[in-house]
Amino acid sequence: MNRPTDDDRFELYGFWRTSATYRVRVAFHLKGVKPRETFVDMDGGEQNGEAYRRINPLGGLPALVDHGPGQPPVPLTQSLAILEFLDELYPQPPLLPADAHGRARVRSIAQMLAADTHPLITPRVRQYLSTLGGFDADASRAWLVHWLGTGLRAVEQRLAAEPGTGRFCHGDQPTIADICLASLFMVTGVLKIDVGGIPVSTRIVGECERLPAFAAAAPALQVGAPAL
Amino acid sequence: MNRPTDDDRFELYGFWRTSATYRVRVAFHLKGVKPRETFVDMDGGEQNGEAYRRINPLGGLPALVDHGPGQPPVPLTQSLAILEFLDELYPQPPLLPADAHGRARVRSIAQMLAADTHPLITPRVRQYLSTLGGFDADASRAWLVHWLGTGLRAVEQRLAAEPGTGRFCHGDQPTIADICLASLFMVTGVLKIDVGGIPVSTRIVGECERLPAFAAAAPALQVGAPAL
Repeated sequence: MNRPTDDDRFELYGFWRTSATYRVRVAFHLKGVKPRETFVDMDGGEQNGEAYRRINPLGGLPALVDHGPGQPPVPLTQSLAILEFLDELYPQPPLLPADAHGRARVRSIAQMLAADTHPLITPRVRQYLSTLGGFDADASRAWLVHWLGTGLRAVEQRLAAEPGTGRFCHGDQPTIADICLASLFMVTGVLKIDVGGIPVSTRIVGECERLPAFAAAAPALQVGAPAL
Repeated sequence: MNRPTDDDRFELYGFWRTSATYRVRVAFHLKGVKPRETFVDMDGGEQNGEAYRRINPLGGLPALVDHGPGQPPVPLTQSLAILEFLDELYPQPPLLPADAHGRARVRSIAQMLAADTHPLITPRVRQYLSTLGGFDADASRAWLVHWLGTGLRAVEQRLAAEPGTGRFCHGDQPTIADICLASLFMVTGVLKIDVGGIPVSTRIVGECERLPAFAAAAPALQVGAPAL
C-alpha cells in the first residue's frame, strides 16, 4: 500500500497527544502514506503564535497542507473532513463501507464521538469552565467523566445491539468509526478516566491497537512526547 | 427533481425547532423528496419515552427510518451523516462540490459549526450547566454567546479570506456548509443572540433563505410550532 511518491506530499501540523491529530495519523498509516510532520507546541501556546497563524489563521490542530502540484494553499482542517479526504484520494483500504446504509451508520457513530462528545472536553472548553465558569478541580473532573461516559455508553449501546457490529465497529475492517472510538479511548487514558461497562467498545479498541497503523499513532511515540 | 415514488419511503422523527432536524428538512427539500414526518414533543420529554425509545433507543433527534424494500430497520441518526446519505442516494442537486479539496473545505466548515460549535449549546449541556454546573441565567447566557460567537466568527474569517467562497459558502450552489450555517443562524434567532460583525455569513444565509428549500424548513412552519 506504500506510495513513496506521495510520502512528502503532505505536511501535517499536529501535537503529540491531541485526539484529532491521532485520528489523522492512524488514517495516514492505514493508507500507507507518510506525511511530513511539524510539531506545534500546544502546551506552549504555539498554535496561537504568529508563525502558525500564517499556516492556519484559526490556530486549530491538526492542519494538513497539500503540497501536491496545483493544489490550493488553504490548509485542510477538521479531522473527520481530513479522513474523508484521504479516503477519497487513496481508496484502498477503504475507511467506509461499500453501501450507503453502512456508510451512514459508520459516519453516525463517528459523529457521536467526534462531534457530540469530544468537543465538550477540549482544552478550550475546560479552560472556560475553570476560569469564567468557576469550576473547581472536582467539578471539572465531574464534567469530563459525565460527557465521556455519556458518549461512550451511547455508542456502546449501539455496538452491542446493532447487527452491523463485527470484529470492528462495522464489519471486520477498521473504519472512521473505529478511528474515532480509539481516539476517545486515548483521551480517557490521558485523563485517567475509567468508563466502566463498555465491553464491546473495549474489545474493538483492543482489536484496533493490535493493528500496526493504530499502534504507530500512539501519543507516546510521537515527536514532543515526554521520554518514557 | 420530485421523485413521487420515494415520497413515502422515509419517516423523519423530529421536532419543530431543533437545528439538526432543520438541516435534514432543508436537504430533503433540496432533493425534492418528501419524508413523512412524525412530531416528537421534545419540550414534553417524548424523546425519552418508551414509544420513541423503540424507534431510537438513544432518544436523539432527528432519526430517519428508511422504509425502502430490504432496508435495515436501524434508524439513521446524526444530521451530517444523514445529509451525506441523502446526497449519495439522490445525487442531484449535489450538496458537495465535485473536487476532493472542495469537499474537504465544505465538510470542514460544516464541522466547525455542527461539531465544534452546536454540541456546546444543546439543551442537555445547558441543563447540566444550570443544575450541576451552578450557572445562573447570566452565566448560561454568557456561555451561549461565547461559543456561538467563537464558532460563527471563526467561520466568518474563513469565508471572508478563502477564495472558495462564492454566492454561497463554497461556489454558487448551496452545500452542507450552507445548511449548517443557516441552522446556526436559526439557533441565534431562537435564542435571540446577536453575533455582530459577520457580514459574509449574514449575506450567505440571506441567499439561502431566498431559496424555497430553506424557506420551507423554517421552524415556524413545522408541525408543533406555536401559532403565529
